[in-house]
Amino acid sequence: MGSADQRTIDWIDGAVVIVDQCALPGEHRLLRLTTVTELIEAIQRLAVRGAPALGAAGALGVALAARHGTSAADVEREAERLAQARPTAVNLAWGVRRALAKLPSGADAVLEEALVLLAEDEELCRTASGHAAELVLRETARRPLRLLTHCNAGRLATVSWGTALGVVWHLHAAGQVEYVLVDETRPLMQGARLTAWELAQEGVPYRVLPDVAAASAIARGLVDCVVVGADRIAANGDVANKVGTYGLALAAARHRVPFVVVAPSSTVDPATPSGDLIEIEERAAGEVTTWGGVPTAPAGAAAFNPAFDVTPAELITAVVTERGPG
Amino acid sequence: MGSADQRTIDWIDGAVVIVDQCALPGEHRLLRLTTVTELIEAIQRLAVRGAPALGAAGALGVALAARHGTSAADVEREAERLAQARPTAVNLAWGVRRALAKLPSGADAVLEEALVLLAEDEELCRTASGHAAELVLRETARRPLRLLTHCNAGRLATVSWGTALGVVWHLHAAGQVEYVLVDETRPLMQGARLTAWELAQEGVPYRVLPDVAAASAIARGLVDCVVVGADRIAANGDVANKVGTYGLALAAARHRVPFVVVAPSSTVDPATPSGDLIEIEERAAGEVTTWGGVPTAPAGAAAFNPAFDVTPAELITAVVTERGPG
Repeated sequence: MGSADQRTIDWIDGAVVIVDQCALPGEHRLLRLTTVTELIEAIQRLAVRGAPALGAAGALGVALAARHGTSAADVEREAERLAQARPTAVNLAWGVRRALAKLPSGADAVLEEALVLLAEDEELCRTASGHAAELVLRETARRPLRLLTHCNAGRLATVSWGTALGVVWHLHAAGQVEYVLVDETRPLMQGARLTAWELAQEGVPYRVLPDVAAASAIARGLVDCVVVGADRIAANGDVANKVGTYGLALAAARHRVPFVVVAPSSTVDPATPSGDLIEIEERAAGEVTTWGGVPTAPAGAAAFNPAFDVTPAELITAVVTERGPG
Repeated sequence: MGSADQRTIDWIDGAVVIVDQCALPGEHRLLRLTTVTELIEAIQRLAVRGAPALGAAGALGVALAARHGTSAADVEREAERLAQARPTAVNLAWGVRRALAKLPSGADAVLEEALVLLAEDEELCRTASGHAAELVLRETARRPLRLLTHCNAGRLATVSWGTALGVVWHLHAAGQVEYVLVDETRPLMQGARLTAWELAQEGVPYRVLPDVAAASAIARGLVDCVVVGADRIAANGDVANKVGTYGLALAAARHRVPFVVVAPSSTVDPATPSGDLIEIEERAAGEVTTWGGVPTAPAGAAAFNPAFDVTPAELITAVVTERGPG
């Protein structure tokens, strides 16, 4: 199916419609969500994820609440519940706030604002990743490029274009990509499942690797540039992103491989002065101790399962938004 | 069952008997191997693995060959085939050579030498990890200790005691271990499957973590010392070990957490001047793109799957053998 043309998250016939990311890469399936509770559940099990897509989910969720709510207080309560569905990505609360600001003008105005936000997301991601592609070309000498990315910062993490993978789309269109190394991204395999799927759809050569093999690939000179997305960018430039980003940045810095972060400016959180103040979501042990229902550890094993980590600004070559490199 | 008393690899009634590490943690099962071909197959699918255990496998395999071989040339051919079953751990070829040197004295002398090597392995690992435990206590201030390890360098990687986990056994016996953080060790999960199982058997508190969460744990101050084993140690002190060790060492160095390598001296390879000259085994893509038969990536995905990486000596606090810290 024409999945590349399908928005990751959209408003269709009075419902929020998402690509179910838990079903990929085996199945490309849409989910129709008609209540805030259903949307929160989808967000928490990561059927929809990625900071920009969560911004869209926040706004569309308020549109759902406004359409069904019995009072402004009711809508505000639902909006607050939605904003707190996941703590780390700042875009979720940002999307909620932005749509909620239109509530005094009525439910239609809320929906209109949400739809504007969705359209903007595509444009901002396209622009940010275009700036980042230019930066990558300036920062590297070898052609075609060998890129490495972590987690999924593609179409599936945004409304329809992508941030880090947006860079790949720009460079691939220009014939400048030799291959993309895809960190599998334990525990939930967003790299192996989602990024690999997107690259395959677009015909970009790729190889999946265990996350911890990335340092080897970098040390062996197999990587010209690392490109990742972000879940929250503190005022000082520290970046919270999928757990594993920090270690990747350490390896890149040691081997002087450029490390580029791409995100719409809605991911920047001026209210958080530095990365150590970002709340890091801790997820269930079962995500680590089983895969596809198959145990990976002894029964009852405890786990340490932070969803994100913080990369200090000094390890990052540039944070690139739609305004250009920061 | 009394699995802690069971040698990981032994000679019983004319056969090599191993604990089948592919079946753990679900099942503790023994495999009886009566030919060199069966032993090589077990080594290549990692039913027996870990550098010291591979040294024992090499010696016992020559004993099998000597018992069944029709000529010295025949035995030497089998020994050579065995020595090349996996390329990175130097102990395999070392065990083969050591047993083969007794061939002129007959098959019984070969077996006797192999059994001496097995007995020595337990003693050397116990001694090396005892030295390392003392070093860890000297290098750290906090009590009880919070340790982190990668892959499996326990009983299951040796004949019966362990190297990095040997340190845990010494320190746990002294009441000095608060917990062990266990890198799950993708792609084959030797940490989650084997190390967690050993720690559970011994009643040592542990938590399993995605490998890439180790840098977070270190950055958050949850780790007092990292302890790992080794597959080959170059003359300059560079260490080849399970892929992921290098990235872990980078994170430990950045946060000034001691990083200790424990191995019997048979893991030191004076013939290899530096780590960049160590051959790194590349394993099949399917190890990365599926888990327990469940796909993790799109059908046909290619993978980068090096089994080991190289940690430069400058990132290592100490390499500890039975002779003490190097």
